Amino acid sequence: MDLSFNLEEKAEFIDNFLENYLKKQDPKTLYDAARHLPMAGGKRLRPFILMSSCNAVGGDEKKVMPLAVAIELIHNFTLIHDDIMDKSKLRRNLPTVHIKFGESTAIIAGDLLFTKAFGALNDIDIDSNAKKHITNGMVNCIEEICKGQQLDLEFEKRKIVKETEYIEMIRKKTAVLFMFAAEGGAIIGGGTKEEIKALQSYGNYLGLAFQIWDDYLDISSDEGTLGKDIGNDIRNGKKTLIAVHSLNNASGKNKKILDEKFGNIKATEKDVKTVFNIFKELDSVEYARNTALNYCSMAKQAIEIIKNSKEKQILIELADYSISREN
Amino acid sequence: MDLSFNLEEKAEFIDNFLENYLKKQDPKTLYDAARHLPMAGGKRLRPFILMSSCNAVGGDEKKVMPLAVAIELIHNFTLIHDDIMDKSKLRRNLPTVHIKFGESTAIIAGDLLFTKAFGALNDIDIDSNAKKHITNGMVNCIEEICKGQQLDLEFEKRKIVKETEYIEMIRKKTAVLFMFAAEGGAIIGGGTKEEIKALQSYGNYLGLAFQIWDDYLDISSDEGTLGKDIGNDIRNGKKTLIAVHSLNNASGKNKKILDEKFGNIKATEKDVKTVFNIFKELDSVEYARNTALNYCSMAKQAIEIIKNSKEKQILIELADYSISREN
Repeated sequence: MDLSFNLEEKAEFIDNFLENYLKKQDPKTLYDAARHLPMAGGKRLRPFILMSSCNAVGGDEKKVMPLAVAIELIHNFTLIHDDIMDKSKLRRNLPTVHIKFGESTAIIAGDLLFTKAFGALNDIDIDSNAKKHITNGMVNCIEEICKGQQLDLEFEKRKIVKETEYIEMIRKKTAVLFMFAAEGGAIIGGGTKEEIKALQSYGNYLGLAFQIWDDYLDISSDEGTLGKDIGNDIRNGKKTLIAVHSLNNASGKNKKILDEKFGNIKATEKDVKTVFNIFKELDSVEYARNTALNYCSMAKQAIEIIKNSKEKQILIELADYSISREN
Repeated sequence: MDLSFNLEEKAEFIDNFLENYLKKQDPKTLYDAARHLPMAGGKRLRPFILMSSCNAVGGDEKKVMPLAVAIELIHNFTLIHDDIMDKSKLRRNLPTVHIKFGESTAIIAGDLLFTKAFGALNDIDIDSNAKKHITNGMVNCIEEICKGQQLDLEFEKRKIVKETEYIEMIRKKTAVLFMFAAEGGAIIGGGTKEEIKALQSYGNYLGLAFQIWDDYLDISSDEGTLGKDIGNDIRNGKKTLIAVHSLNNASGKNKKILDEKFGNIKATEKDVKTVFNIFKELDSVEYARNTALNYCSMAKQAIEIIKNSKEKQILIELADYSISREN
């Protein structure tokens, strides 16, 4: 099974549906802004999880397409609003929406994708009880994402964040949407209660592995150059798992340095390098990597009760991919 | 019939439902921010229209309460996001959400109310076809509001806006939610096709009258002092109906002054007064007032086909109220 081929093939299929929900209208600037990010490609990982999960319980993936669109739109709307808050300048190698179109239009563009997500959801053809359940799931999911984003902002201002708090934050900010995708696929695909529960769990662990691997990638891919990204994260006091681990395990001189330099907007390049060396000395980079591998194993274990099939194999490969990808 | 008593009584009833959907949770700051505006009171005009419209076709207003909450939450979420874009400092005599909690938390708080609106909507107990129709109505309504807000932003930067363009902008930004409320009440209340159409039309005209009366109130209540608000609107080039009328009807010297001073961030107090005098000289203030009165009449005419009842009387009084209120 070639996962990357499968991912690409499905991404194209998803893009066609997405395009249908994002037709250009007036005012032109607003629709250009709303289309900017979702039409810039992307792996469409969340829709892919949804479709694969539906297939793995013997369902027909065509039935989940409106929900696939809804989930991808939710993902994109949160990215647009988050980029405003984080003052991010680039995303998918393009200027972020607020950089290109201004903050006001970016806020509205996010809101527009948000409502279109519920429009897409409304198009699912399932019985009214299941629809009510899935709608509630999406509502709660977005509420959790809002909480996660707020926690992420608050953590930047705190000196110490416990590892359990960090995990809870990324569970809300990232994993719930993976979980909702996997659960939604299982429900619409007609899975048994056990299958639905197993796939929920799979989505949750996969999301955690995915997010922590992102933290790991950000720092390890930048290691040679210790470029702008690591520097900014360290200066802003961004609480990745790596930073959280070091902050909680440093003592003596290391603790003093982290106290002074981590989250210090005036940290010099030398300071950044010193902090980074502490991260390595305390094995925090390796710790994050291992934690991601661990969640990946838990994701795969969670679906052991699902009947073997090539569709299930895709879910397993997807879990492995989440902790081996290089971008 | 004492409309103000009726409004107050219903507002209290609505507030109880609203409170139920906005229970405090963690992170505390996010929920404080999300509750700040909706819990600060307000006339609850849109839920009131919904309930009255339901009653006027012989329905039971209790059935519309989840939709009443949804509509009020949509209204509040758009206010929070709009206040960020407009850099407004005060709303309902309180600091705006972004002033009190910061812009990032205000964006998230708006998003939280947004998703909760769809959560409330999901609780309506009606058959699945009607629910699908109403959900689509709410989705389209929010899309129109997004378009209206974008147009409002774009109009500020334009020299000239046609009156038809202005009406189209406020139709999207304000009237569609009034229209959706009136239509929703008629549908859930079991109105006939004619009744639904009549109430849709009523909501549309009422919304237009309401918004134009707001423009009129802003300028006439401030007239004695020519305070900060008129000054800022004139300096920012805000396209109220009054400004639009003057810009389209000025000639000669007046046109030259408007060209130079209206939308000029550096306009002096004397300039503001000169512009305001042109608005009066060209009868633009009176024109806006008359246009609001006209839409009010059209709102009342629209529901002539509805059977007379004290519930219908409330809708008529509400239309009169919209163009006689002083705040």
